[in-house]
Amino acid sequence: MKELPASHAYRLLEPGPIVLVTTSEDGRPNVMTMGFHMVVQHDPALIGCIIGPWDYSYGALRSTGECVIAIPTVDLARTVVDIGNCSGDEFDKFEKFSLTPRPAKGGAPPLIEECLANLECKVADTRMVDAYNLFILGVERVWIDPDRKERRTLHHRGDGSFVVDGEVIDHSDRMVKWRDLPR
Amino acid sequence: MKELPASHAYRLLEPGPIVLVTTSEDGRPNVMTMGFHMVVQHDPALIGCIIGPWDYSYGALRSTGECVIAIPTVDLARTVVDIGNCSGDEFDKFEKFSLTPRPAKGGAPPLIEECLANLECKVADTRMVDAYNLFILGVERVWIDPDRKERRTLHHRGDGSFVVDGEVIDHSDRMVKWRDLPR
Repeated sequence: MKELPASHAYRLLEPGPIVLVTTSEDGRPNVMTMGFHMVVQHDPALIGCIIGPWDYSYGALRSTGECVIAIPTVDLARTVVDIGNCSGDEFDKFEKFSLTPRPAKGGAPPLIEECLANLECKVADTRMVDAYNLFILGVERVWIDPDRKERRTLHHRGDGSFVVDGEVIDHSDRMVKWRDLPR
Repeated sequence: MKELPASHAYRLLEPGPIVLVTTSEDGRPNVMTMGFHMVVQHDPALIGCIIGPWDYSYGALRSTGECVIAIPTVDLARTVVDIGNCSGDEFDKFEKFSLTPRPAKGGAPPLIEECLANLECKVADTRMVDAYNLFILGVERVWIDPDRKERRTLHHRGDGSFVVDGEVIDHSDRMVKWRDLPR
């Protein structure tokens, strides 16, 4: 995996891919599927996301304050759904779904080898957790697999169906107001 | 436009499409482009989004507490970029971009006739606005154009380029844990 500046996070998350989230508590890693997330700020990179008490990962996230957001591609579509339909309470999901945990640089939750990108995050603000289960995460490090051929991400339509990345339209020359964004 | 239950909002916004946001202040409508948003809750439908003082719409949103989130499709890609690169302070953007404002049912900000869907929203919580420009919006009504042929939305890659909706993968039969979501 190649490291990118943390301020690159918005380039990966603004398009709204479904993601996996890893946590680790007492030496035991877990992974969940997440679709309710957004970029909050470009640089320093902040992410907002919803993880609730109905998610087994919620306890680990609250107690450890760290997670990894991993971005899967189309080859993992079925796995992404199945991860979201069972609980880490019952299974070692890394083992069950043949995912390879890879040590992160700055925290216990592992990166996922099979994903296109991995973002090491720390909880930055929990003031909206009680009201909305809304965590503000600070992105510490961004890793991307530069050699991966399959790079098409998945956009969850809320019901277990996904729209897959199609063609790219480039109007970057018209972004005259935003020339100073981190590249 | 056909009305859908407000609880259908997550089906439209979870996939992460770039959106337009309309506001109206003192009888003057305006429109901006937005990519930092997420679903917060299925039902009652809540949306989180980032709109900052650098957006001319910020003032109208704070003072009126209402907006419409409109979902454009691929035919509007260039317009979506251009709307995000000029200010409502200088132009009547509906006129400049030949958009047709259509009266909403419950508020002053107009729907956009040329969009696939329009969500009438009211600001539900401003506690995170000072810290992160993060508004929590309640979705009051959802409108969709059932007759529209072009339905492919755009996912902003942060730099003025977009990935367009491609093929659909359906694993809805595997959503065993989420059978009670609002359809």
